[in-house]
Amino acid sequence: MAATIGLVLDCTDPDRLAAFWSAALGYATLGGARSYVMLVDQSGQQPKLLLQRVPEAKAGKNRMYLDIETPAVDDEVTRLEDLGARRLETEPRAEHGTRWVIMADPEGNEFCVCDAGQPNGTSA
Amino acid sequence: MAATIGLVLDCTDPDRLAAFWSAALGYATLGGARSYVMLVDQSGQQPKLLLQRVPEAKAGKNRMYLDIETPAVDDEVTRLEDLGARRLETEPRAEHGTRWVIMADPEGNEFCVCDAGQPNGTSA
Repeated sequence: MAATIGLVLDCTDPDRLAAFWSAALGYATLGGARSYVMLVDQSGQQPKLLLQRVPEAKAGKNRMYLDIETPAVDDEVTRLEDLGARRLETEPRAEHGTRWVIMADPEGNEFCVCDAGQPNGTSA
Repeated sequence: MAATIGLVLDCTDPDRLAAFWSAALGYATLGGARSYVMLVDQSGQQPKLLLQRVPEAKAGKNRMYLDIETPAVDDEVTRLEDLGARRLETEPRAEHGTRWVIMADPEGNEFCVCDAGQPNGTSA
């Protein structure tokens, strides 16, 4: 049986990121305090996202990040730009049968919008 | 509707981390190439985890990381240590009604084992 996974994202302004990520992912705000805001998928099908306040700013590229999977990559990129994200590269990338755009949230956390999220290559 | 989320973890040795994370999470290896290994929850209830090869080593604390939620925190910590994880702190932490242990995978990526993964505080 697979474990139940939750996600944590350190940030300097949980409320600001909660506004972005709840709209980006269609999540609801479950609760919060000064030190965190908890976002949940009310259908229960996607992992929780805990936005946790930390004193330090982001430094360097994130080692772990989200893919947002959608068949309509360009529309989703536009929607997320309107919510406060920005593209980190002008042109989409394409490899292994997947096409994706690299973006960043309002605190600069990298994420991707991709049309499959699953490389279709085989062992090589 | 919530978006479909996938997770990406940059690493220097995808095969080594695939062995650890597939056992840690109960995931299956869907496929891979030199540049990546894709792990999936065969029940489809948890997000995919793409282990992506990058040239650079981990630097600093990860900004985004996983919580593994289980009612049996201590047993899970022991199991994960046997798989190659290590505790980053001797004593568990407890706050907002949640108890957790901070650990790291074989490449040093931080994650937590927690008994709820959901702070039960309210707005304050």
